Amino acid sequence: MRAKFVAAVLALWAIAAAQAPRRAVSLIVIGGTVITENAARQVLSPGALAIDGTDIVAIDTPNAIIRGFSAAETIDELGNVVLPGLVNTHTHAPMVMYRGLADDLALMDWLQKYIFPAEAKTVSPEMVRIGTRLAALEMIESGTTTYADMYYFEEEIAKTTRDAGLRGVLGQTIIQFPVADAKTPAEGLKRAESFIKSFRNDSLIVPAVAPHALYTNDAATLVACAALGRKYGVPVIIHLAETEDEVKIAREQHQATPVGYLESLGFWGPRTLAAHGVWVNDDDIQILKKHGVGVSHNPESNMKLASGTAPVTKYLAAGIALGLGTDGAASNNDLDMFGAMRQASFLAKHATHDPTAVPARTALDMATIGGARALGMEKLIGSLEVGKRADLITVSMGAARQTPMYDPISHLVYVTHGDDVRSTIVNGKVLMKNRELRTLDREAVIDAATRLSQKVRAAVGR
Amino acid sequence: MRAKFVAAVLALWAIAAAQAPRRAVSLIVIGGTVITENAARQVLSPGALAIDGTDIVAIDTPNAIIRGFSAAETIDELGNVVLPGLVNTHTHAPMVMYRGLADDLALMDWLQKYIFPAEAKTVSPEMVRIGTRLAALEMIESGTTTYADMYYFEEEIAKTTRDAGLRGVLGQTIIQFPVADAKTPAEGLKRAESFIKSFRNDSLIVPAVAPHALYTNDAATLVACAALGRKYGVPVIIHLAETEDEVKIAREQHQATPVGYLESLGFWGPRTLAAHGVWVNDDDIQILKKHGVGVSHNPESNMKLASGTAPVTKYLAAGIALGLGTDGAASNNDLDMFGAMRQASFLAKHATHDPTAVPARTALDMATIGGARALGMEKLIGSLEVGKRADLITVSMGAARQTPMYDPISHLVYVTHGDDVRSTIVNGKVLMKNRELRTLDREAVIDAATRLSQKVRAAVGR
Repeated sequence: MRAKFVAAVLALWAIAAAQAPRRAVSLIVIGGTVITENAARQVLSPGALAIDGTDIVAIDTPNAIIRGFSAAETIDELGNVVLPGLVNTHTHAPMVMYRGLADDLALMDWLQKYIFPAEAKTVSPEMVRIGTRLAALEMIESGTTTYADMYYFEEEIAKTTRDAGLRGVLGQTIIQFPVADAKTPAEGLKRAESFIKSFRNDSLIVPAVAPHALYTNDAATLVACAALGRKYGVPVIIHLAETEDEVKIAREQHQATPVGYLESLGFWGPRTLAAHGVWVNDDDIQILKKHGVGVSHNPESNMKLASGTAPVTKYLAAGIALGLGTDGAASNNDLDMFGAMRQASFLAKHATHDPTAVPARTALDMATIGGARALGMEKLIGSLEVGKRADLITVSMGAARQTPMYDPISHLVYVTHGDDVRSTIVNGKVLMKNRELRTLDREAVIDAATRLSQKVRAAVGR
Repeated sequence: MRAKFVAAVLALWAIAAAQAPRRAVSLIVIGGTVITENAARQVLSPGALAIDGTDIVAIDTPNAIIRGFSAAETIDELGNVVLPGLVNTHTHAPMVMYRGLADDLALMDWLQKYIFPAEAKTVSPEMVRIGTRLAALEMIESGTTTYADMYYFEEEIAKTTRDAGLRGVLGQTIIQFPVADAKTPAEGLKRAESFIKSFRNDSLIVPAVAPHALYTNDAATLVACAALGRKYGVPVIIHLAETEDEVKIAREQHQATPVGYLESLGFWGPRTLAAHGVWVNDDDIQILKKHGVGVSHNPESNMKLASGTAPVTKYLAAGIALGLGTDGAASNNDLDMFGAMRQASFLAKHATHDPTAVPARTALDMATIGGARALGMEKLIGSLEVGKRADLITVSMGAARQTPMYDPISHLVYVTHGDDVRSTIVNGKVLMKNRELRTLDREAVIDAATRLSQKVRAAVGR
């Protein structure tokens, strides 16, 4: 069947080549099914895209694309599914170095006995580079094309991300206590401003400022972060209402909910991205909606850390820009957005006692165009449309666990893993083709991380 | 590092070969880490096993095994983890044919519009063979070595399972209404008895009787099923307290909980296996404990169908024999026990608001020795011990998402998929080695299922 189709396409290709001048482009991608995630949620079976430079220039049937365009490179995955690259709206990339270092602990034990000591002894520009490279490898291999980050030495993360060819919304962390890259929040803010200036015109990197949380920054710092974001028109990323304890702190210290307290500071704006948003009430959701705040839902982290359940169906009903995130690999423990989709659907059904909640289509929307909206980037990425950046992935559907296939969207969410991704393209550039990496040396990345892990192990006495 | 070790092992092997007579066995398996799941939960790093015929005859360091034994075949996976084969305590193997046929629906819509019509039009001995072969492929590829089943034409499932080389506790379904293989429950019981007689001395198949549920069978049928199980000393498998509706039915029709009603019928015994056990109270748990009933926890199915949360920590505290199951692929949608482990841990943490609930070790116990106990087979399988059947798998740990590795048990539960399984051995026979299948023709199995799926699609008008 497939061989016949390819033969027919090649025959048409030869005829077309003889008959009409074709537009020269950099890349053609052909898929058995192309899931566009455009406004009409159009699906082409089969379908193809023409890409020139960084942009998608045409989406049509394979025949039409082959008749109309000649490409320097063609990715023919007629047996596979093509979809927008996945958007991970919340992680801490270098924390892959602490993956599985300590699990199944109460939050304070986990932080105080393992994560904080490990960070105090091992966070450095080199650790951040090695960790980000490993995270980039995992993201490219599992189909994430854009990710939002909060960590330290964010300029190193930015350089590493750009070298790997991924798109990143990267937030320099601001926190009240001394950390590896800043002794004070003022120093952190200075570092953030310099980071923003260096990267604000980058084609892959969106620099951002990332006040860690309301309970780790005082009011003046939070206000300064929001002001810095506004001054440069860049995103402001914050952990919000992740745990019930955070609500308790806000109520005791500020006589308000976390959302209400930040509202009283004038913190919110259309470029703020709130990670988690678990413990919010209906008024809080209205405040977030009023300001056009993006929310990142992290179902796996929330379950593993027993944080609670974000009111996803309420966010969706309110029209909040809702994306999905994995959170850092220290609390998930992977960066696989397919797992995040599956868990978003499962957790919503479980929490609302309604098996129709967050159907596969909605989970896929959250991981693509929803994430793009949450990051304020829906005009550039999140769907396959002419004029948008060419951020896309191809996914195989031939595994036993994917057989038979009645509905590709069900399969993407319920039985597909990151390992099924075949090719990953960001900004028109092929980062992985048929599992062959083009921007990273797989063995070298894994070896460097494995060597560094000895230092991490020593730091926490494991 | 690995190359050096292998060289050293080979050198020792040569020395040993020259010095001492070694016992001839059928198979040696060498692993970087051997997780035994024995009573002491011993872990050997590195470790090796000698297997002769169906049994494990020695577990020791690779050097000791190589000095003591010569094998017809050696599986050298020194970079990988070796562990007991996973035990899936609840599925409906042929329902892989309905995988992803209909998702995200209310239970009654799902059953009445899709599953029942599809079953009425497509269940046949041939469908059961094709579906079971696909399920067996998926299970072998994802590290399940024993599974418990409930479906129709169970003798066909048994033959197909035996041909694939898997171990199965296979229950012939008994149900009050007419189904494909029996017009009445009496006919079903006759079929079950004949099935039991045919397979009760099989080395891989444990035949069982499977009354579907208390709400789909009258009291006389339930009593007859229990009696049939006792007569032949075989397991009796039933869906128990899966939904809140089932509790309502039991209370209205029998003025008792589901567990209490079945207790009043004298249904329970040490060979009964109850699937789901979501809606049980403390008295129910005591009844199950008193009779030594095994319970199968199916966290993914329970979440996807919004059935509720089984009280896993209470079952564990009570010492109930608790295993994990995937449920059928129509409601999960895969048969991957690694996913079941991860979800068992995540859901327990979430439901109890306690991140220390069901740590990785406990989830692994449930998927191995716990499942064996739930099936009453803990003397044969579920751990790697001398004298037990050689049911084991090897798992790679080299993926980016598995880097670095601080703790193999954390990685098995939190970042590993079925696709990471390299070799699968059941009853001493190698079913898959380095992803190469020995008992099934992968392409043929997938092609047959894909062809049959056209008929399923037509049956429900999709």
